[in-house]
Amino acid sequence: MSYTSKISDSVCDDDVAEFRLVCVDSTWSRQTADCECVEGRPSDAKIYESSTEDGVTWTVVSPIVFTYRVIQSERLLDASNDTLMFGHISNPTEIQALKNNSKVMKRFIVIDETVNDLYGSRVAAYFEARGVTYKILHLPTTEENKSMALVTSILEEVHKFGIDRRTEPIIAIGGGVCLDIAGLAASLYRRRTPYIRVPTTLLAYIDASVGAKTGVNFANCKNKLGSYIPPVATFLDRTFLCTLPRRHISNGMAEMLKMALMKHKGLFELLQKEGRSLLDSRFQPRIHENVHLDAACVSTRLAIETMLEELAPNLWEDDLDRLVDFGHIISPELEMKVLPALLHGEAVNIDMAFMVYVAHERGFLTEEEKRRIIVCMQSLELPVWHSDCTLDLVQKSLTERLKHSGGLLRMPLPTALGRARIFNDLEDSIVCRAFKRWCDEHCETAMKPQSHNGNA
Amino acid sequence: MSYTSKISDSVCDDDVAEFRLVCVDSTWSRQTADCECVEGRPSDAKIYESSTEDGVTWTVVSPIVFTYRVIQSERLLDASNDTLMFGHISNPTEIQALKNNSKVMKRFIVIDETVNDLYGSRVAAYFEARGVTYKILHLPTTEENKSMALVTSILEEVHKFGIDRRTEPIIAIGGGVCLDIAGLAASLYRRRTPYIRVPTTLLAYIDASVGAKTGVNFANCKNKLGSYIPPVATFLDRTFLCTLPRRHISNGMAEMLKMALMKHKGLFELLQKEGRSLLDSRFQPRIHENVHLDAACVSTRLAIETMLEELAPNLWEDDLDRLVDFGHIISPELEMKVLPALLHGEAVNIDMAFMVYVAHERGFLTEEEKRRIIVCMQSLELPVWHSDCTLDLVQKSLTERLKHSGGLLRMPLPTALGRARIFNDLEDSIVCRAFKRWCDEHCETAMKPQSHNGNA
Repeated sequence: MSYTSKISDSVCDDDVAEFRLVCVDSTWSRQTADCECVEGRPSDAKIYESSTEDGVTWTVVSPIVFTYRVIQSERLLDASNDTLMFGHISNPTEIQALKNNSKVMKRFIVIDETVNDLYGSRVAAYFEARGVTYKILHLPTTEENKSMALVTSILEEVHKFGIDRRTEPIIAIGGGVCLDIAGLAASLYRRRTPYIRVPTTLLAYIDASVGAKTGVNFANCKNKLGSYIPPVATFLDRTFLCTLPRRHISNGMAEMLKMALMKHKGLFELLQKEGRSLLDSRFQPRIHENVHLDAACVSTRLAIETMLEELAPNLWEDDLDRLVDFGHIISPELEMKVLPALLHGEAVNIDMAFMVYVAHERGFLTEEEKRRIIVCMQSLELPVWHSDCTLDLVQKSLTERLKHSGGLLRMPLPTALGRARIFNDLEDSIVCRAFKRWCDEHCETAMKPQSHNGNA
Repeated sequence: MSYTSKISDSVCDDDVAEFRLVCVDSTWSRQTADCECVEGRPSDAKIYESSTEDGVTWTVVSPIVFTYRVIQSERLLDASNDTLMFGHISNPTEIQALKNNSKVMKRFIVIDETVNDLYGSRVAAYFEARGVTYKILHLPTTEENKSMALVTSILEEVHKFGIDRRTEPIIAIGGGVCLDIAGLAASLYRRRTPYIRVPTTLLAYIDASVGAKTGVNFANCKNKLGSYIPPVATFLDRTFLCTLPRRHISNGMAEMLKMALMKHKGLFELLQKEGRSLLDSRFQPRIHENVHLDAACVSTRLAIETMLEELAPNLWEDDLDRLVDFGHIISPELEMKVLPALLHGEAVNIDMAFMVYVAHERGFLTEEEKRRIIVCMQSLELPVWHSDCTLDLVQKSLTERLKHSGGLLRMPLPTALGRARIFNDLEDSIVCRAFKRWCDEHCETAMKPQSHNGNA
């Protein structure tokens, strides 16, 4: 959208003609903006043309509209549930036509190895019951294997199996790594094959599955290669979470807390009050409870809504001012340094805890607000300090941030409970004072043997 | 854009709430469409929400606007010419700021091996003179090497060299294969790194460089992997064409003729009249001729304008009805069958020649129009028939087309000189009659030893 200003800039210098495009009988033709001569199907694309002494300069402006659905659905693997087959289609007539069609449908499923051990037979049973020709490819989708090689092996299998690029989406079932790898494979195959995300971890449920990013690690760098191609649909079934280790529930709650701190006081208060019991229940509905009112439903809904609000207007991250970067300034360095000791959400939480001290030092949060946030983090069993998160690492991370954010710091900081702003100024003296106080208040507690040591 | 109808479909069934998004103080928030409560920066993205018994369904609609420039510029490698450094930037203030900045700029250049032999030292001299830190990576970018492995080797070098993803576009100089490979590498690196295309063949000048497609071959299939990410800019310098073998000039003119036959009678007449002399002059300006009026300028300009008209409204090929597919129905099969005997444009021309017979058989073209087209093709030294293009291959290609085009044939056919429409019906008897007449009229001539045998 920054485009409009760019064109008007150049209009001053050159004599730029603006053309809109109209389609008549399969042929597109240009029309000057003021002419109403031909009736036909219009396009949102535009072409600008100007002449120079060497020839012509054309500027093409072409909007692509991404549309994707995020659907909460329980019992996703029950054969009676249509979602896994047709949830990506919004038009009921289209679904009915597919159901009536005698052609056997095909589905290619990429599933994480561990998830396959737990749910693979039910996935197979679902497609058997549906009369679908399917192929389940299970892969060890760990951070260490998150590479282009794994993407290629998916592509080879997809190609061998054969799918209709338009109507037979690839389905990815697993945690964030699995969804990222399968998403990249799909976005490359025939230049874009639709894919569906089914997250099985809380982190992926809240975070990886609602945006557009795909990716793999490259040259020892996290997600260095990838694309911004959203899935056609994401299906969220929290019953997958019941088999998740407790530590991975905490891990996901860190990203939930991030959205709460940045923009939703109500979500923060809910996590403060119900966080521990959500951890205990693994976000499963409690017996006799109204399904629409339980804390698990409300908190996941708020986390996703706040996340979508930030992602939808900035799907390709053209705007570098991003509240969702909170907790992601220091954590990449820290995560790489101690890998695999900390899970992603744990590293994010340590980053957020430090930033809360920065916000307090700058006078944005009161001592009481700071304390409430830290206590909430601890109740979610998330680490709030780490010995490897040194002042040196903090300062190095801030320098890296400057380099990769177009020369500005663009640091999201809470300015009150559930409110935040992006800041470009940060005095080193503030960083040092915040760091000292952070260490003073947590170093000893964190060092005690009963504390979170990253391998619990 | 097909999205709008989809949403309204589902509105009938569910109670769908529509939200627009507004940014205040770096925080995006949702507003119902009818509320005017908060002032702020609006987004074109929208979120739709509905409730089901299992939870919530969100539909995200997010437009991404691609903007790219196609610039004709001569003497691209003259140190005094700014284009290669700053042509991708439309805002003059921005260019001035970069020129005033003391920071040394970096550029990574991917160049075809053969092009490097011819122009490599001048490319190096350009960046030397500009005081730019540069790396020239020359690669054997042939159809046989067009693979993910070559993309990876580019990525490794880019990563080692280090570029600023926002401000230092990767520059690709070469034919279509080179531009496609480098474009895919750029679109993967950090999920999207800007790149610039500098075509050095006529085919790439007219065709590959003005659209959004990148790609590599995979599993013996042409362009099976890739993306739809346009370059930030394409710089067209026809002086590169003066070192091109004559056969490759003909090759490019086939794509030019395609646009003429589909939608521009004037371009057809120009090719008919001046085609042979364009071939002789390799599109170079003739001495004492007004640069803006020579046939080379006019024909390339018309070819690009007509191509952009068709590509801009359909950058991601969501609409399968594409006039630019003319000549690309039978040619992929034929090209693969006889590889490397036919160049791409030659295979395309054989396909077009046959389709002209189909159009004649259906009564769209008169005998005289058919003859004019074939004579024009021959004057451009393009093959109009091939012994490997059997009736069997034609019929198989049409079946493949049906399979990959959503069940419809979507076949572009000329309906007059410079006019065309898309057809979904085609009787086999028409195909057989057209094929017979095509063979009757060309088989003997083509078989003569002096004719084009594909290896000239």
